[in-house]
Amino acid sequence: MSDQNLSKQNMMVIDGLELSKWDREFLLELKKGGVSCVHACCVLWENARETLSKVSGWYQFFQKHSDLVIPVRRGEDILKANAEGKIGIILGTQNTSSLEDELGLVEVFEQLGIKIMQLTYNNQNLIGSSCYEARDSGLSRYGKLVVEEMNRVGMVIDLSHVGEQTSLDAIHHSQRPVAITHANPDWIYPSKRNKSPEVLQALKDNNGILGLCAYPHLISGSETPLEEFVDLIVRTIDFMGVKQVAIGTDLTLNMSDDFLHWMRMGRWTHEMDYGAGSANNPSWPTWPTWFKGPADFPNISQGLLERGLKEAEVESVMGGNWYRFFDEGFLRQKEM
Amino acid sequence: MSDQNLSKQNMMVIDGLELSKWDREFLLELKKGGVSCVHACCVLWENARETLSKVSGWYQFFQKHSDLVIPVRRGEDILKANAEGKIGIILGTQNTSSLEDELGLVEVFEQLGIKIMQLTYNNQNLIGSSCYEARDSGLSRYGKLVVEEMNRVGMVIDLSHVGEQTSLDAIHHSQRPVAITHANPDWIYPSKRNKSPEVLQALKDNNGILGLCAYPHLISGSETPLEEFVDLIVRTIDFMGVKQVAIGTDLTLNMSDDFLHWMRMGRWTHEMDYGAGSANNPSWPTWPTWFKGPADFPNISQGLLERGLKEAEVESVMGGNWYRFFDEGFLRQKEM
Repeated sequence: MSDQNLSKQNMMVIDGLELSKWDREFLLELKKGGVSCVHACCVLWENARETLSKVSGWYQFFQKHSDLVIPVRRGEDILKANAEGKIGIILGTQNTSSLEDELGLVEVFEQLGIKIMQLTYNNQNLIGSSCYEARDSGLSRYGKLVVEEMNRVGMVIDLSHVGEQTSLDAIHHSQRPVAITHANPDWIYPSKRNKSPEVLQALKDNNGILGLCAYPHLISGSETPLEEFVDLIVRTIDFMGVKQVAIGTDLTLNMSDDFLHWMRMGRWTHEMDYGAGSANNPSWPTWPTWFKGPADFPNISQGLLERGLKEAEVESVMGGNWYRFFDEGFLRQKEM
Repeated sequence: MSDQNLSKQNMMVIDGLELSKWDREFLLELKKGGVSCVHACCVLWENARETLSKVSGWYQFFQKHSDLVIPVRRGEDILKANAEGKIGIILGTQNTSSLEDELGLVEVFEQLGIKIMQLTYNNQNLIGSSCYEARDSGLSRYGKLVVEEMNRVGMVIDLSHVGEQTSLDAIHHSQRPVAITHANPDWIYPSKRNKSPEVLQALKDNNGILGLCAYPHLISGSETPLEEFVDLIVRTIDFMGVKQVAIGTDLTLNMSDDFLHWMRMGRWTHEMDYGAGSANNPSWPTWPTWFKGPADFPNISQGLLERGLKEAEVESVMGGNWYRFFDEGFLRQKEM
């Protein structure tokens, strides 16, 4: 079966995280790739006030490109985007810096349309520790309350960059399924950013979901063949089950080196920090030939079909699982 | 006809502004007075970040008292509150300090549920001048854009404390009807805070609406008889027409002197400023015997009936006019 056939069936493709330069050209590439919905990162280190400016920038983007874009706050918005051939955009943050020390800001930012928050970015914060800290003392007192509040208002908890103990604590404390929007099993690709069997088992037991990541530093680099990425998907399905595995590319296209420095170093250090990169590989990674951009999503679905996955399984992994997860996860607790 | 009869008909009573201490006791007083909806002031001098905390406080209030309160963002929420015997609360600010210098924050705060903003409080700001400035250079360049943006997103423009020229400019520049939620004609009660015939004529021509104010400093003081307040309403109807006159009591109950100082002096002066008060009358005013609190609204409707207004006219002034104004005013421009 060719990707043309899949495309005809209006398969929902949903990407669990992208951090690229959002402009009209990028939207058209997403459309070319048949993408119905993307979780877009709008905050890395910003505080509450700065987050308002970021959110406002997104509102202006939604207005300017309303012929191509639908802001997503509920599952039905994703269906609408898919039906109309538009791109649904879920706003999320890769940090809880926006909340500062104020529990009530969870609901405030949820009301602004931020439907996903990663508990920590690359550093320890008021809530917990990141995967790069030497020690991780787990979810803080404030962190527990934030998890409860996110549960209450229907904001999805993301643990992608979060440390081992904080991740386990958060999964244990959350009354609702959580997400790891962009990471891989660390026994397949060893990296601080990838996830241990313990965390992924806990995620599985929580009915949570894992978005597998094509960021070159989290796989075998830019030369990773498509077959190897397909293999990652298949092996992760073997572990997690086909309903709890999805895609979260972490695609970072057309971003400046200044932004890379902000992404890695924020305001917290004056020394170089390479994040998931290294001194030998300090800049933006080159993406694999089979995923040069969002227009290449059909390569992944085609790879999965050729590997022998059933059509329904491919549809689950490429978008169906995210859709079901978000459809429920974005509801207020009292609506469930 | 007695007020009992009016109450049976479920007449909608809507108050154009209150700034009281919001607690459960106050809600029960509103209920006793048959009040369906109140515009509640949640910001006086706060900047963007501080406004988030204020809004969050209101969300917590809504959650805690959800058996008595409905947050209002659309006209239908007012109808729902009225039908269920609850209090609809419209959040608004008496200043544009929340916007700072960032046009995009109009939409951000609208998304948080702030559906009314007064362009200036008692001082000149980035947008225009207040009624207390010696000179009023009118709506600024930024102010014009803010008016346009408020028009676009369906945030009601309030001119109650705004200076003469800025008010005239704003009415002229607005493509949609504007409100003066709490002020009186200055030819009936001379005060900088009350409004000239020129402004009220412009408001009338704009299809705007005036909420008449029982704040003692803006009428004849605490001793003002009910008949005189009724007379104010009737004379204002003669000028504006019965569809453009409403009530905006400016009720300030159970607030501390510390809050009074914040209300008048914010952070902008270290000297005493008396606002609408005076050195001889520096504290919170005593309210007239016929309006000791929101349970006394039936006194006003009863007074209007006894003065000879038709029932339908009383219903318009007591709430119907605000309802129609808000029902349209809270829509996005593209929804109209």
